[in-house]
Amino acid sequence: MYNFESSYRVRYADVDQMGFMYYGNYAKLFEIGRVEALRNLGVRYKDLEEGGIWMPVYENNSKYLEPAKYDELLTINCILKSLPKTRIVFETEILNESKKIIHKGLTTLVFIKSDTQKITLCPQIIIDKLSPFFSLNE
Amino acid sequence: MYNFESSYRVRYADVDQMGFMYYGNYAKLFEIGRVEALRNLGVRYKDLEEGGIWMPVYENNSKYLEPAKYDELLTINCILKSLPKTRIVFETEILNESKKIIHKGLTTLVFIKSDTQKITLCPQIIIDKLSPFFSLNE
Amino acid sequence: MYNFESSYRVRYADVDQMGFMYYGNYAKLFEIGRVEALRNLGVRYKDLEEGGIWMPVYENNSKYLEPAKYDELLTINCILKSLPKTRIVFETEILNESKKIIHKGLTTLVFIKSDTQKITLCPQIIIDKLSPFFSLNE
Amino acid sequence: MYNFESSYRVRYADVDQMGFMYYGNYAKLFEIGRVEALRNLGVRYKDLEEGGIWMPVYENNSKYLEPAKYDELLTINCILKSLPKTRIVFETEILNESKKIIHKGLTTLVFIKSDTQKITLCPQIIIDKLSPFFSLNE
Repeated sequence: MYNFESSYRVRYADVDQMGFMYYGNYAKLFEIGRVEALRNLGVRYKDLEEGGIWMPVYENNSKYLEPAKYDELLTINCILKSLPKTRIVFETEILNESKKIIHKGLTTLVFIKSDTQKITLCPQIIIDKLSPFFSLNE
Repeated sequence: MYNFESSYRVRYADVDQMGFMYYGNYAKLFEIGRVEALRNLGVRYKDLEEGGIWMPVYENNSKYLEPAKYDELLTINCILKSLPKTRIVFETEILNESKKIIHKGLTTLVFIKSDTQKITLCPQIIIDKLSPFFSLNE
Repeated sequence: MYNFESSYRVRYADVDQMGFMYYGNYAKLFEIGRVEALRNLGVRYKDLEEGGIWMPVYENNSKYLEPAKYDELLTINCILKSLPKTRIVFETEILNESKKIIHKGLTTLVFIKSDTQKITLCPQIIIDKLSPFFSLNE
Repeated sequence: MYNFESSYRVRYADVDQMGFMYYGNYAKLFEIGRVEALRNLGVRYKDLEEGGIWMPVYENNSKYLEPAKYDELLTINCILKSLPKTRIVFETEILNESKKIIHKGLTTLVFIKSDTQKITLCPQIIIDKLSPFFSLNE
């Protein structure tokens, strides 16, 4: 298993008239979580893209346990539970300032070649960087 | 079953550097679909809210079959397959200009009283307006 | 002078916890106004872009006279007061349901070639379509 | 004069299909700049709001010198050049990773009482915290 924590301050731009973060904005937090989790491994998504790999989202699930509120400093915990093959699955837990989980996300992305737009395997660089976190039996 | 179709033009604001609608923006389209589906029944979400009922999202699932692209005129098909009780479940199909389904959504909302923020039942006005679309056996 | 009116329904996604449209979202309405004003002339921005012309924004000014509120059906009045040369200037008036102007925008865009990213002149197709609306002395 | 620097990483959510930050998203960076500038003084906008003061934007001007691009770590320099009275004017300079100014903003906000929605003077707490940065002659 590999995980990485980022933080995010809820902005006025994010909040709706209930005073809660708009339900569509969590996807942006998942993005921050997974991009920073990869960066922490030494993999920049920008470099992957410039190398001809796109990672479009295939499936995204959100469970809203409690609302995030204006100006809260959230923790985004991004978790990889298995090594990617043709897909990569990121779990996201979002925690409020009291470290209570208020939101759960599950995002599946695929790898495509940007020139042909065809599905491809997970780039070796990601496998290499992740492997130390996964035992042989995982 | 009750369904209602709205349309949405993909804007520059919506699209990412792959030229696809950003994956987090579909939630906004689901919102348009369900608010217009309710309006078509004679129920304005704004009025519900002013009457003390909020409808926060409890769960939201998205399946990305094909990307929506800049300037496409999408069809948002919002479907209610059962009468709401303490939850209301909207299915959303998003179709491109060739009427092909490119995205599927499933959104569950709950009803809460805005003053106490406690869970409540679906307002009777929604049940009354929806009932004609549902047979006794549904 | 050439002008064109579009309409826009304020969504939950647009509104902040004051119950007003978030101040950053007006730019998206200006975009809708100018893209639809061009479409009404027979010019699709998508086609310009595919033909190698980008129109990045150079300057954008917003004056907030009154807030737009949730679920209001706004009118976006997009106005061109002069023929473009190296720049094109769109004025935007946003009106509420009582047809009162609640917001004024002024957006200047330039034309660049997408391959070289160098400034270029306004495409002839835009001039041709706009000319009938402008007298010789304008 | 008082100024404060924040930083912002450009996200996929922010960027359009030119590969530039969408022109409407700079307003969100100005918001971050001024909220963090106030927090650094010991003033939380959230507390002002809970104390009955809203600060809606009255005017917002943006000058786009160069585009911000995906994954850039921008610096947001928020500058107050005069003490607020009935209005507060924030200048924003956005710098890229080479510390070149790529964007300039000028945002004027007013103070209103949230209960009456009437204009009011700048809260004394802001004046008190800002005064040490302004000489008598400013």
